Amino acid sequence: MPLYEDPAGGVRVAPEPLRHWTALLLGRLGTPSDVAGDVAEILVASDRRGIASHGTARLPQYVALAEAGTMDPGARPFRHRGRPGLARWDGANGWGHHAGRLAMDDAIERAMTLGCAASVVHNTNHYGIAGWYAMRAAEGGLIGMSLTNTSPLVAPTRARIPMLGTNPIAVAAPAGRHGMVVLDMATSTIPRGRIEVAARRGETLIAGWAIGPDGSPALTPEVALQGALQPLGGEERTAGYKGYGLALVVEMLTGVLGGAAFGPNIIGLFSTEAKSDLGQFYLALDPEAIDEPGAFEGRLEQLIDQLTAAPLIPDAPGPVLYPGQPEAERARRSDREGIVIDREHFANLALLAERFHVDFPDSLVAA
Amino acid sequence: MPLYEDPAGGVRVAPEPLRHWTALLLGRLGTPSDVAGDVAEILVASDRRGIASHGTARLPQYVALAEAGTMDPGARPFRHRGRPGLARWDGANGWGHHAGRLAMDDAIERAMTLGCAASVVHNTNHYGIAGWYAMRAAEGGLIGMSLTNTSPLVAPTRARIPMLGTNPIAVAAPAGRHGMVVLDMATSTIPRGRIEVAARRGETLIAGWAIGPDGSPALTPEVALQGALQPLGGEERTAGYKGYGLALVVEMLTGVLGGAAFGPNIIGLFSTEAKSDLGQFYLALDPEAIDEPGAFEGRLEQLIDQLTAAPLIPDAPGPVLYPGQPEAERARRSDREGIVIDREHFANLALLAERFHVDFPDSLVAA
Repeated sequence: MPLYEDPAGGVRVAPEPLRHWTALLLGRLGTPSDVAGDVAEILVASDRRGIASHGTARLPQYVALAEAGTMDPGARPFRHRGRPGLARWDGANGWGHHAGRLAMDDAIERAMTLGCAASVVHNTNHYGIAGWYAMRAAEGGLIGMSLTNTSPLVAPTRARIPMLGTNPIAVAAPAGRHGMVVLDMATSTIPRGRIEVAARRGETLIAGWAIGPDGSPALTPEVALQGALQPLGGEERTAGYKGYGLALVVEMLTGVLGGAAFGPNIIGLFSTEAKSDLGQFYLALDPEAIDEPGAFEGRLEQLIDQLTAAPLIPDAPGPVLYPGQPEAERARRSDREGIVIDREHFANLALLAERFHVDFPDSLVAA
Repeated sequence: MPLYEDPAGGVRVAPEPLRHWTALLLGRLGTPSDVAGDVAEILVASDRRGIASHGTARLPQYVALAEAGTMDPGARPFRHRGRPGLARWDGANGWGHHAGRLAMDDAIERAMTLGCAASVVHNTNHYGIAGWYAMRAAEGGLIGMSLTNTSPLVAPTRARIPMLGTNPIAVAAPAGRHGMVVLDMATSTIPRGRIEVAARRGETLIAGWAIGPDGSPALTPEVALQGALQPLGGEERTAGYKGYGLALVVEMLTGVLGGAAFGPNIIGLFSTEAKSDLGQFYLALDPEAIDEPGAFEGRLEQLIDQLTAAPLIPDAPGPVLYPGQPEAERARRSDREGIVIDREHFANLALLAERFHVDFPDSLVAA
């Protein structure tokens, strides 16, 4: 995930009051408190980790979905069929975050008995950061995987139009004193948000990031925003077909396996035209099924020790990192000093506070 | 996987006699006939699919490992602990292909009851094409995944030296009249063999493929062969950290989870210095656990219909493909017309035939 720099002139908010306020706000939409607690937890986790694009900044769009009746804020997901190792959940067109938490916890619980278990969810919505669900497993000492399909933005290799989403892959595992390894990556070269940022800044683009509507490489953000993102790897000659293949695998395990919408049939992101019917996939593996407690974690700690001590290329901007390390550092700083959100984000939250009569707690804005 | 063009002046060999001869040859090394059958099947499957780098061309190297006592050609892998959903196999330092077939079949059998099951293997060797094991699941209507760690060739983002292998990811699923989707991809931008080909042809390299020993981009094959491959995505600014993250995830699920060698601790490819102790991971998911028979396959067929009908970019060399399509077409042609292998490959097989007194069948060389 792209870790966003602190916005200039931003507002510093405290995570715990932000979570509390978010849960109260969701309650006003008719979301039961336990469901609202999950959604608030996951949105604020994204803000804490520096992923501003997937956190509380999205609240106005979620509220619009609920108000349009396109998403059911009071829905209760349910598990409707399966075998011990693979269950299928119906998200009941409710909050994707809550359905995801339930389905992942279900996979974790079964993996603690079986060693390995999976859940798929259909009839669900945008679930925020894919990594949170994988981390849920790693917090319990397991290896977790979380996948979701998303609205079509990426052109398969050789295609001119978007047919697949940025379909993220998240995998997390406990890593001893390194905390956790958390890979959370879109299978496109860059997220669409990166192009929007380039547009605001008047930057040009690198070939391989996106194509324009005619299928040629997009070298300006304006052209790219009318076209499609390229899969990880970029053009065909630089192995972009691998990113396309990964996006297709995510689609197979989520929308296709789950019986949800898939590929080009998914509606636009946060569109209020119809329900999203996204698909998600969760896998949990328990290393203790095959080894002594702590043995896996100890070996992963050793591997991270080795990787992060590697000699550097001449122009390296810093040491070798492991996936999830910058986000974990940001989360620790957020918990200590608050989350810095931009003025527009803060103003949007203030509008929601006013409209739904949920005052900000006094402690929301940090000193 | 890179699909190799037919070599100029190559020899056309028939797949079935090649498999039969390979199995007899392996018998002379002390490999039991059932084990030899698996190895021959998987090596020839690679040749049939156009992946010359992972097929019978490797026989001289495998023979050298067996003769050096670094690999045990007569070994019997065994399953030594686990829970119903996750088993651990000891490859007994034997043929990776046979251990892989056993561990994957074990995962498939358990997934047909549980819905989802995995196996890990440690103390094993190079297993040929990762895709074969995933296809084994797809042939039975399941979704299969196969991962292996490999000798260090890839530099993590910012690192100057190789620390991880080209760690492939293979996923296969049944796709109705499209046969199967089979993604089988290294997590590096290109395989090392591609650089060796460039060296023979006197070509320069694209930045992002490899770095030299000083950590700068390698623009000639000679410099690259002394340095390291770059992970999928290439440099940091083009998201090479995603390929690094994927390679690390493969390492976590294979060597680290399996308790095999991992990362920079793995010896060189086909080195006879010590045993390889590679790790492999297999996952099988049964869509029928959560849906009507054929429903998953029908939806995947529909998605492939949509993707392959997409309008094309201006300079597209052909239609949109799905992963595994070129390899499946090549396998059909190989079965019809024979496999075209290069003269050096054929001469090496002839040397083995002579040394081990295993004559080529009359039908080996096709008309």
